Amino acid sequence: MALALENPRLLSLAAGFTDSRTLPVAAVQAAVSALARRPGEPEYLQYGTNLGRPGLRQLLAGRLVCREPALAGADLRERVFITNGSQQALYLAMQVLCAERDIVLVDRPSYFVFLEMLAGLGIRARSMPVDAAGRLDLPGLGARLDGLARTGELDRVKAVYFVSYFSNPSGRSLDAGEKTGLARLLADRGLVVPVIEDAAYRELHFGEAPATPSVPGLDDWRGFPVLYLATLTKPFATGLKVGYGYCTNADWLVRMAHLKGHHDFGTANFTQAILEEVLADGSFDRHLAIVRPAYERKMRALHETLEAEGLPAGGWRWAAPEGGLYLWLEAPGAIETGLASPFCQACIAEGVLYVPGELCFGDEPLRNCVRLSFGVLAEDALREAGRRFARVARRFG
Amino acid sequence: MALALENPRLLSLAAGFTDSRTLPVAAVQAAVSALARRPGEPEYLQYGTNLGRPGLRQLLAGRLVCREPALAGADLRERVFITNGSQQALYLAMQVLCAERDIVLVDRPSYFVFLEMLAGLGIRARSMPVDAAGRLDLPGLGARLDGLARTGELDRVKAVYFVSYFSNPSGRSLDAGEKTGLARLLADRGLVVPVIEDAAYRELHFGEAPATPSVPGLDDWRGFPVLYLATLTKPFATGLKVGYGYCTNADWLVRMAHLKGHHDFGTANFTQAILEEVLADGSFDRHLAIVRPAYERKMRALHETLEAEGLPAGGWRWAAPEGGLYLWLEAPGAIETGLASPFCQACIAEGVLYVPGELCFGDEPLRNCVRLSFGVLAEDALREAGRRFARVARRFG
Repeated sequence: MALALENPRLLSLAAGFTDSRTLPVAAVQAAVSALARRPGEPEYLQYGTNLGRPGLRQLLAGRLVCREPALAGADLRERVFITNGSQQALYLAMQVLCAERDIVLVDRPSYFVFLEMLAGLGIRARSMPVDAAGRLDLPGLGARLDGLARTGELDRVKAVYFVSYFSNPSGRSLDAGEKTGLARLLADRGLVVPVIEDAAYRELHFGEAPATPSVPGLDDWRGFPVLYLATLTKPFATGLKVGYGYCTNADWLVRMAHLKGHHDFGTANFTQAILEEVLADGSFDRHLAIVRPAYERKMRALHETLEAEGLPAGGWRWAAPEGGLYLWLEAPGAIETGLASPFCQACIAEGVLYVPGELCFGDEPLRNCVRLSFGVLAEDALREAGRRFARVARRFG
Repeated sequence: MALALENPRLLSLAAGFTDSRTLPVAAVQAAVSALARRPGEPEYLQYGTNLGRPGLRQLLAGRLVCREPALAGADLRERVFITNGSQQALYLAMQVLCAERDIVLVDRPSYFVFLEMLAGLGIRARSMPVDAAGRLDLPGLGARLDGLARTGELDRVKAVYFVSYFSNPSGRSLDAGEKTGLARLLADRGLVVPVIEDAAYRELHFGEAPATPSVPGLDDWRGFPVLYLATLTKPFATGLKVGYGYCTNADWLVRMAHLKGHHDFGTANFTQAILEEVLADGSFDRHLAIVRPAYERKMRALHETLEAEGLPAGGWRWAAPEGGLYLWLEAPGAIETGLASPFCQACIAEGVLYVPGELCFGDEPLRNCVRLSFGVLAEDALREAGRRFARVARRFG
């Protein structure tokens, strides 16, 4: 296996990186030059503040309200804070909310780096059940909560987490009915715990912007402490690593901010200043208009190859996503896809890598899923990777 | 007090920021342009790796060996890792080494942000005693360790921490005798615990580079796990916030790296690429040659004002530092300098701020010290701030 991994022809559908060919070299350079030309002291090269640049937080608050007027509030800017990617916000949130052995309800499948982080903190993840189409199964969740109540563990549930738009890894979005239904179910059970909506892929829609409101934009969540997370750099330039959170609960926010002061007392001011510049001068949005169709073309290259190569006839199931960076495939039940599986070994030997789906479950993992990223490779390489994957799939089918 | 703090003429000797007038605007812009011109894909705008850019780590390893040939080792580059300022490395180190109620031995006085972080993690700080000149009092430390042994707490000591060059806040450096004496004392007691040398100010020497070897460069520390911490951005541009650690212990390093993967899976690749560029093209070192004499002039402006204004005659004691950003003053014993003290209130009313020394002690704080930063203000403002401070000092003298 080690030898096969050193194959220089190996094509990776595993890495969650973004497209390198569309990275905004000129926009970043122009932003740095604009900052350099600005009269006065170059404050952007000096330490910033723990919660982030006021101007950037103001712009982000404005964008939130522009998309969802329901979010408008006098103190919105004060509720927005900047982190080292949204990953850091997830870590801060978990560190202040949970002790060891506490429980977090997670989507199914869920973001595997978040699940690993929970494991590292000794926090237990429990999946929210879904139906065959991947929709939240609210009666199933109710039964699950009943079970936790019976074992006396319901009060160990300290938070709810999900990736709500074009999910990593499933590619699907929660619709408004699922979101409000979840809120009502939790409220009915008296489980008014903090909820974390991870909207990292919301900007990467292929068609129109998704119409589903965010959690803080929905009345049914009004009574819950909500942390809405997003990233500025996944749709722009991941090398800048700037994420942000919008937290509706002042106490939770203060505790996260205090902890961030201990972690690093503020995300790099310089990268924030660049993002403030490209948001203000329009190049951020112009870049989105470039990468959205680019990712759609890449998705199609992989999706259509897998279709053309006969995977559906072989019993493989997936839906073409309407945004994001991932295809989530379910193999015919007998095919296991874990790292040590013959299927995975055969893919490596064939020169194609993927993320085993079993890593993406808080509990009761499905063994026959794979996550394929179309973010990194060019379209030709995606087609070749798809053909390699399909050759193995046919052999095991 | 709130009103006084809003005084627009207030001069702050409290903030630990760096000089804004010398920030390397042109060097940063040139580095970004050079990166933009580079053929091939703009990988510097893409996600990087958890431990940091290989090229930057290689350059840093080379610089460490260049200064201290004793550090040479085949795997040096593999032992260097990049963090969000050295603050994050401190946090990672404490999180993996200590549980609540554990003890860390700290210098006296010590870096107050580190002390706050320890408090936040529920870790107890215990000071290593010093003599009247501020030198480590090794017999005193021995007695202190005897005390911990008697109360059964010696095995709660999980680490030793100190700022070794031009300390924040004291401005002084540990000499080779103190460093080796400390190693021998700890080894004699069987207390071979991880040691963290915080060398954040090492590059900011006014005269020749300090001759004292680092902890990992001293034979007596060979048996200890050592984490040597430094920052690339405090002497260059704090807005870039890139620190690094060199860890001699593979297991400790692996655990910190694993945790960093959960915090943020890697410091921003872009700021690292800029630092790699300015280290390679020489502009980093040219910038050091500019800021070192600038900080020396600023130190002299404040130091000489305080002397000329008669503080020594009033019983105030301090030493002019040979590097760093701070003067550490001891008031005549009767003058308390805490935030709520009449002295502090009088300074605010007079329009000058400082950091109360009592915040800088792991235990048994001295109440009559102040930390004055000369990093931020221009020389004229430093002289004015010094005169204001001296007016208050004379009134209380």
